Amino acid sequence: MNMNTNQLTVLMIKYIKDGKRDSLQKVLEELHPYDFAELYRALPEKHHYKFLTFLTSKQIADLMMELEPEMQMEVLQKLGIEKSSKVMDIMDNDDLADLLSEISEERLEEYLSAMHQDESTTVQQLMSYPPETAGGIMTNEFVWIRDYYTVREAVDKFKSFAELTRNIYYLYVIDENKKLVGVVSYRDLLLADMNEKIRDIMFNRVISVPLEMDQEEVAQLIQRYDFLAVPVVDENNVLKGIVTVDDVIDVFIEEANEDIEKLTASGKSIDFNTKAGVASFRRLPWLILLLFIGLITGSILDGFEQTLEQVVALIFFMPMIAGMTGNTGTQSLAVVVRGLVTNDLEKRTIAKLIWRELKVGIIIGLTCGSLVFIIAGLWQSDIIFGAIVGVSLLSTLIIGTMAGTVIPLILYRLGVDPAVASGPLITTLNDIFSLLIYFGIATSLLHYLI
Amino acid sequence: MNMNTNQLTVLMIKYIKDGKRDSLQKVLEELHPYDFAELYRALPEKHHYKFLTFLTSKQIADLMMELEPEMQMEVLQKLGIEKSSKVMDIMDNDDLADLLSEISEERLEEYLSAMHQDESTTVQQLMSYPPETAGGIMTNEFVWIRDYYTVREAVDKFKSFAELTRNIYYLYVIDENKKLVGVVSYRDLLLADMNEKIRDIMFNRVISVPLEMDQEEVAQLIQRYDFLAVPVVDENNVLKGIVTVDDVIDVFIEEANEDIEKLTASGKSIDFNTKAGVASFRRLPWLILLLFIGLITGSILDGFEQTLEQVVALIFFMPMIAGMTGNTGTQSLAVVVRGLVTNDLEKRTIAKLIWRELKVGIIIGLTCGSLVFIIAGLWQSDIIFGAIVGVSLLSTLIIGTMAGTVIPLILYRLGVDPAVASGPLITTLNDIFSLLIYFGIATSLLHYLI
Repeated sequence: MNMNTNQLTVLMIKYIKDGKRDSLQKVLEELHPYDFAELYRALPEKHHYKFLTFLTSKQIADLMMELEPEMQMEVLQKLGIEKSSKVMDIMDNDDLADLLSEISEERLEEYLSAMHQDESTTVQQLMSYPPETAGGIMTNEFVWIRDYYTVREAVDKFKSFAELTRNIYYLYVIDENKKLVGVVSYRDLLLADMNEKIRDIMFNRVISVPLEMDQEEVAQLIQRYDFLAVPVVDENNVLKGIVTVDDVIDVFIEEANEDIEKLTASGKSIDFNTKAGVASFRRLPWLILLLFIGLITGSILDGFEQTLEQVVALIFFMPMIAGMTGNTGTQSLAVVVRGLVTNDLEKRTIAKLIWRELKVGIIIGLTCGSLVFIIAGLWQSDIIFGAIVGVSLLSTLIIGTMAGTVIPLILYRLGVDPAVASGPLITTLNDIFSLLIYFGIATSLLHYLI
Repeated sequence: MNMNTNQLTVLMIKYIKDGKRDSLQKVLEELHPYDFAELYRALPEKHHYKFLTFLTSKQIADLMMELEPEMQMEVLQKLGIEKSSKVMDIMDNDDLADLLSEISEERLEEYLSAMHQDESTTVQQLMSYPPETAGGIMTNEFVWIRDYYTVREAVDKFKSFAELTRNIYYLYVIDENKKLVGVVSYRDLLLADMNEKIRDIMFNRVISVPLEMDQEEVAQLIQRYDFLAVPVVDENNVLKGIVTVDDVIDVFIEEANEDIEKLTASGKSIDFNTKAGVASFRRLPWLILLLFIGLITGSILDGFEQTLEQVVALIFFMPMIAGMTGNTGTQSLAVVVRGLVTNDLEKRTIAKLIWRELKVGIIIGLTCGSLVFIIAGLWQSDIIFGAIVGVSLLSTLIIGTMAGTVIPLILYRLGVDPAVASGPLITTLNDIFSLLIYFGIATSLLHYLI
C-alpha cells in the first residue's frame, strides 16, 4: 500500500473501467480524506462521474470537505440535487456552510429544502455569522453535558458522539439555560473515578470567545493557550459552537497571506490556480493607483527642472535615494505588520516601538549617509556635492523608517483597514518624500555647486 | 476571578510583600501557563526573586515554557544551578532542548550534570538534531504500546502517562525492535471493547515523518491531514518522538515571518522587543547591498547623459516606470513565495505558473502602457514621446513580472535559499532593467523627438 498518487490513479482507472467496485473500495478504505482528494484531482475528468457512483455518501462527504470550491461545485453538479443533499447531511456543518455560501440563491433553496430539516436549519444558522469571525469559523458539533452527570454518564455520551464526529477533545458543561459553566477534557474523564460527579472534576474558569470575535484573535488565543478547541458563546454566555485547532491553522495561513498581500499590494487571493485574467484583474487596481502616484512623483521633478539642467549628476543618485527610502520603509512596515500577529497593541508598546524605529532610522541613516557622502564626494571631487547626497540620504532614511512605522500604526488605531498601508504605497510615498528632500536640499545649495 | 493582568499584578505584589504564599497559590491555581507568564512579565523585576520562591518546581517549569529566551535566562540565574536543574527535570523535553541550546558551553555542562541522568541523556539526544527539522521540534513524550496489549492494558498505560504529560492524543504501537507498526487514538480506545486486542483495532497505515524532514513539510502534512500529532521515525522506522499540533502552529507563524523577511529584506527575527542597535545591525547588510545596486542604477543613467540633456521630460516618467516594474515584480514574487507554502512544486506546476504570469504581464502591460501612452502623449503633445513611454512601460511590466516569477523559482529549484530573491532585490534589479529599456528605446528614437 505504499503507492504514490500516480500509481494509485492508474489502478483506480483500471478498477473504474472494469467496474470493480469492491477492489476499489478496498483501496479507498486505507486512504485519509486528504489522499482521497488528491486522487480525485489526479483522476481524468471523464472518470469522475463513475468514480463518484462507486462511493458511499460518507466517502463523498469526506472528499467534499477536502476539495476547493470549484471542484466541489463540479461534484454537486455530477451528483444531482437528491444525492447532493444526502452528502450535505453528512458533511461537517462548518464546511457545509462555507460550501453553501458559494452557491447561487436559487440553487441554495433547492439544496436546503432537499436536506434534513434540522441539518438545514443548523447550517442556515451558521451561515448567518460573518465569515471571518468566531461564529463564521465555528462548528456546532460539540458534546455538552450537565454538571450533575457522573463521569460514567459523561463517558457514555462521549462514546455515542465519538462515532459521529472526529473533533471531540473537550466536553462542555452547561446549566439549565444552556450557559457555559465548565469544561472537562477526555484526559480528566480518563483519570477520574467512574462514579465521581462532573461538577467535582470540571474546570470552572472556562476561556471562551464571543460569536463576533475576529478569527485572528481566536487563533491567537488558541495558539497562546495551546488549546485544541475553544468554545464560542453569545452575549448571554450561551454555548453556540466550538472553534477547533485545525481551523485555526488555516486561519494563520490565511492571515499570513493577507499580510503579504498588504505588504506587496499583490491583490486578494491569487494562488497557483488562479486564471491569468482574474489575476490581472485583481492586481490592476493597485497598479493603476500606483501608476498615478508615480506620475505625481514625476511632476515633482518637473518643478526642479532648472536644478536638474544645471547639475545633471544629481540625477544619477536619484534612483539610489528613492530606492533606499522605499526599502527601509518596507522593512519597518514588515516589522509592524508581523508584530501585530502575536502582540497586543497597547499605548506603551506603540511609544516604545516608534522610539526604537526612530533610533534605527538614525543609525541606518548615519551609516548609509556617511558611506554615500564619501562615494559621491570622491566621484564628483566635490565635498559639497557629497554632503548634499549624504545629508539627503540621512534625512530620507529617517523619514522613510518613520513613515513605514507610523502610517500603519495610525491606520490600525483608527480601525481603518491597514491594507491601505501596503508596501508599494509606502514605497511610492517615500519616493515623493525623498525626491522633495533631495532636490530641495540641492536647490537651496545650488550656488555652491556651480 | 475576572481580573485583568494589571489588577492581578497589584494583588500579587501585595501578597509577595506580605509573604502570603497560600493566598498567592490559590490565585495561581486558576491560571493557565500563558496567563502565568503574562503575570511574571508584568511584575516589576525586584519582586521576581521572591515570587519564584513562592512557586513549586512544576509551576516554575510551566512558567519557563511560556517565556522568551532572555527571561528564561533571568529565571535560571535567580534560581541557581540546583533549583534550576530540578525545574529542567520537569520541563517538556522539546522546550528544554530549545532553552539549553541558548546557554553557553560551560554553564550547559553544569546544568546537565545537575539534572537527572536519564532526563539529561534524553535532552542531549534531542539537542543533536538540527533545529528546523522534525527531530529538532519533536518531543519524546509519547506513549507506546505493543500490538498484543488488550484495550484495558492500553488504557491503563494511557492513564499512568496522562498524569505526567499534556499532549497525548494517540498511542503508538511498536514491535519488539521499537519499529512503528500502528496507531490508536483515544477515541478508538473509548469505542472499543476492553478485552479486544490492540492489533485488531489499530490503524496500520501510519503516516510518519523522518527525523531530518524540514519543519515546514511536517507542518504542511499535519495541516493537510488535520492531525493532532505525527510520529517521527529514524531510517529504520524506529519511533523517536512526536511533533504536536501546537508546535506546528508556531512553525506556520515562524515560516510566514521568514517569508515576509524575504519579501521585505527586513532582516532576521526583528520583533517589537528587539533593541534598536540589534535591529539596525540586522537590517544594515541588505540596505548596504541595495545601496550599491542603487548606485549601479545611477551609473546606467550616466551612460544616457546625452539623451537626458536633450529631452529632460524623459526624466519625469522615470520614477513611474522604475516604480511600476518593481511593483509588479513584487506582486509576482509574493504569489510564488506564498504558493510554495501549500503547494508542491512539480515541473507541470512551474510551466503553468510561468505561462500564467506571462499572460498576466501582457494584460497588465497593455492596460498600463495604453494609459500612459495617452497621458504622456497629451502632456507633451507628441505622439512619439507617448509611444516611447507607453511601449517602455509595456516591455518593463512584462519583464518585471517574469523576473518576479522566474528568479525565485530558479533559486528554489537550485536549492539556493530563496531569501536571496528578496523583494527589494527584485525591485532594485527591475529598476536596472526598466531604466535600460526606457532610455534604450528613447535613445534609439531620439532623432524623432528633437
